[in-house]
Amino acid sequence: MTQTARPFELYDATLRDGMQGEGMSLSAEEKLRVALKLDELGVTLIEAGFPASNPKEQELFALLAQETWTHSTIAAFGMTRRRDLRADEDPSLRILADAFCDVTTIVGKTWGLHLEKVVRVDPAENLRLIADSVAFLVGEGKRVIYDAEHFFDAWRDDREYAHRCLRAAVEAGADTLTLCDTNGSSLPMQIHEAVSAVVAELGEHARIGIHAHDDTGCGVANSLLAVQAGATHVQGTTNGIGERTGNANLTTITADLQLKLGIAALPDGHLPKLTETAHFVDELLNRTPRPTQPYVGRNAFAHKGGLHIAGIRADASTFEHVDPVDVGNQREILVSELAGKGTVVEKAADAGLEVSDEQATRIIERVKELEHRGYHYEAADASFELLLRRETGVYEPLFRLESWRVIVEQRAGGRVETEATIKIWVGDERFVRTAEGNGPVHALDRALRDAIAGVHPHLADIELVNFKVRILDETKGTGAVTRVLIDASDGQRTWGTIGVGENLIGASWDALVESLAWAEQPGRAVAAPAPRGDAADDDAVPVAR
Amino acid sequence: MTQTARPFELYDATLRDGMQGEGMSLSAEEKLRVALKLDELGVTLIEAGFPASNPKEQELFALLAQETWTHSTIAAFGMTRRRDLRADEDPSLRILADAFCDVTTIVGKTWGLHLEKVVRVDPAENLRLIADSVAFLVGEGKRVIYDAEHFFDAWRDDREYAHRCLRAAVEAGADTLTLCDTNGSSLPMQIHEAVSAVVAELGEHARIGIHAHDDTGCGVANSLLAVQAGATHVQGTTNGIGERTGNANLTTITADLQLKLGIAALPDGHLPKLTETAHFVDELLNRTPRPTQPYVGRNAFAHKGGLHIAGIRADASTFEHVDPVDVGNQREILVSELAGKGTVVEKAADAGLEVSDEQATRIIERVKELEHRGYHYEAADASFELLLRRETGVYEPLFRLESWRVIVEQRAGGRVETEATIKIWVGDERFVRTAEGNGPVHALDRALRDAIAGVHPHLADIELVNFKVRILDETKGTGAVTRVLIDASDGQRTWGTIGVGENLIGASWDALVESLAWAEQPGRAVAAPAPRGDAADDDAVPVAR
Repeated sequence: MTQTARPFELYDATLRDGMQGEGMSLSAEEKLRVALKLDELGVTLIEAGFPASNPKEQELFALLAQETWTHSTIAAFGMTRRRDLRADEDPSLRILADAFCDVTTIVGKTWGLHLEKVVRVDPAENLRLIADSVAFLVGEGKRVIYDAEHFFDAWRDDREYAHRCLRAAVEAGADTLTLCDTNGSSLPMQIHEAVSAVVAELGEHARIGIHAHDDTGCGVANSLLAVQAGATHVQGTTNGIGERTGNANLTTITADLQLKLGIAALPDGHLPKLTETAHFVDELLNRTPRPTQPYVGRNAFAHKGGLHIAGIRADASTFEHVDPVDVGNQREILVSELAGKGTVVEKAADAGLEVSDEQATRIIERVKELEHRGYHYEAADASFELLLRRETGVYEPLFRLESWRVIVEQRAGGRVETEATIKIWVGDERFVRTAEGNGPVHALDRALRDAIAGVHPHLADIELVNFKVRILDETKGTGAVTRVLIDASDGQRTWGTIGVGENLIGASWDALVESLAWAEQPGRAVAAPAPRGDAADDDAVPVAR
Repeated sequence: MTQTARPFELYDATLRDGMQGEGMSLSAEEKLRVALKLDELGVTLIEAGFPASNPKEQELFALLAQETWTHSTIAAFGMTRRRDLRADEDPSLRILADAFCDVTTIVGKTWGLHLEKVVRVDPAENLRLIADSVAFLVGEGKRVIYDAEHFFDAWRDDREYAHRCLRAAVEAGADTLTLCDTNGSSLPMQIHEAVSAVVAELGEHARIGIHAHDDTGCGVANSLLAVQAGATHVQGTTNGIGERTGNANLTTITADLQLKLGIAALPDGHLPKLTETAHFVDELLNRTPRPTQPYVGRNAFAHKGGLHIAGIRADASTFEHVDPVDVGNQREILVSELAGKGTVVEKAADAGLEVSDEQATRIIERVKELEHRGYHYEAADASFELLLRRETGVYEPLFRLESWRVIVEQRAGGRVETEATIKIWVGDERFVRTAEGNGPVHALDRALRDAIAGVHPHLADIELVNFKVRILDETKGTGAVTRVLIDASDGQRTWGTIGVGENLIGASWDALVESLAWAEQPGRAVAAPAPRGDAADDDAVPVAR
């Protein structure tokens, strides 16, 4: 089969189809940064969108045209001609023809239901729309990727017509036929059967591709089974962003292809860039990277429990299906009651601390005691490190507390007002500060940072990015306690802290102080502040209430 | 094949394997609530965990034993015997034998690598561990589900030994053999091949099950392909929670089985409970339901673009692979007026309220507006009822607010002190009360109840049993808001309320007031106070901080 002779292609549609997802939005400049990152990762093709006449798209295509691309080719995206115009008169096809891109992807109809109910085009006429549009772009010197919309629905309804649509594109010169599961309606075995049939019929004449969505939770598997049926071109989006439940997750697919199916989807040695690329795209989209994402998520190689950790020491393949280093990720040892001395030593080493055997024993005792009181270090890595520092004598507190006070009040119909006052000592100097805030934690945070800003100027660059509270009443006898978790970030790293106590505000204060203290421990490489408008503005603390 | 003769089984492992996920934690009471919800959904089996001798697990199994289960059976979970003890002497197997559950799941080793590197057990001895443990539990009258750990890794390494492990379990009387992809290392085609082989060899003698994880992004597909290879027992967790990248998502699998493969996984007519169940579990875990989750996510049936909406008007199947109503979800753009209205009327009837058609329309508008601001009524049934009451003019407020104020302070080394003052009107009478508390919500609650105790004596019998806070920053433009959920109970019923706002204490106050107001609405049958030591003691409010 000629399929195997074609080098494999990854087609990243993040910048076009991915942007259909709820709340997705990138400026032209940001889209360029994503494209450059994908080029560095080494995907074969990057779908940039339709080079329409609006200023934002014009700006994007101008930026893309100026760049030198090392591994990737930029594809422009459009659709088949209007039914009332010749292809060479259709203004959208003309824009595609004139774009700098050598590769053009066009989408067309395949499914009778859509022809009848949505666009009201006769099946025979639809074949002419496909053939004319492909032929025009091929005549303009483009490599044409033909995306057959709703292909699998069409194939289930009227197999013969679905094949005729594909043949119309191939005969007009399309280089690649992408079979699209546009509604995400299909299951893996159906995909495998349909792709096999198409590869058997047309695989000699065109490259066969797959474009899947995750509506059945099978976006990744559908793509893989298409490859196993002979497809050599896989479309998807970074982190699986996209409308509804998302496009097929190209990040996961890439690792599966390389590590599980032995297919060289990326240039040699590039797979370890996968985690960084995935997080970069989330960062630009202002999304928290999903910790449970396969291969690249923070928890993808997390372990808890002494048996796991002992097993991994003996042979990592006992509990890890791939080496996290291969995808640029790392093993994460979760601290929990089940963990042993090995975990403590390993965590300490990660933080650049040395822990003696005796200290490790004491730390485990201390962790057990704290977990009994409601502490829980799995989501509070920074608090765990501070605990290690205290127990090994290398903790540097930010200040000595004299007192703090918060007042929250509301009058009928009025807004809730909050004021916090703190009194602290740094060395021999006493600081008294009062601040208002959106809520008690915000007010305390402002007052505290105001007090120590002179000594710790970097604190201005830290944001509290998440705040969660729950009540633990597991130990009924001793009464319930409040557990507060705070995530802080300097724009590059995120770290978690915990506060536990009877009092919601007291526990929040403890977690807040640890968030700031972690960042200011000696030897911490503080990230360079990202450029921003007014870095010192207290409103940079968006979520602490 | 006898497989098809066996009724299909869904096995929900949320309460045991799901709890291995990072940061997952539920109290015994909360686990009971999850189990009751799963019973209502109609899963076949619920894995409750190991009935260990610690107080928390004892409490859970005592609670589970007291309930009447309509659709589900509770399974206890343990492992094969220790190598140095006979099965009937092994204390863990004895605990399983003595548990009230008729079904016991035990996990055992299958993979040579683990025998050699992790547990250091001889392969022949491992077969005895399996056989002895299964035989002992069968002898104690249990239905035994044997979970073959790392089965697929084992099958790839030494097919013959993997089969011998399974045969040992079957010959000892195991009713079900679950093939576990413990590391989540496998792809769908591998799963299909291995399950097919096992079904061919042992399918006459035992039910074959699948237990998958999502490390390759194929947890759902692997489960489905196992079913297509003859498995009739599928293990997974609600929303796919679990360690690393999570267990196979049983929520998605359930919908795929029912709607795509035509397998009756749930009792007839129960599939529309799927969305509500999935969101309920997330709420209890204080997780934001993933909007992109297949079938049940907020975006799963979201549409943008006029063509989509026109298409859907013509025929919903043009752009929707299944009807959202079938899984209890809804289309996002065209909020189905009828479906929405039906829900409102139903909820109102539940609360003994009559709602006109016009009122229902207005209520839907109001709910949409409030949900846009961060309200969310799935876990706040009491707040939803109060909203219905306000809109239908039968709401009776407890008081009119003049003002409230909370002061929280701490001196170095001292405990955190909290004081709340409220000024309210009931009719023509003004009440001013100050109270101390363990935290701000506790202090506000005491002051408020103290003020209105004369008018509402029953309030003394209500406890605030849970309090959860989360920051919502989904709507970037308008800034983050705080969402507070409070559960209250009179010892017989539990009801949930919600408060949303910029300020943590303000939102908590709103949720607190609704907790008390719900209980005192006219016509409410207040439960008789449960017997207790000193019912009027304010310390009966154990958790509000």
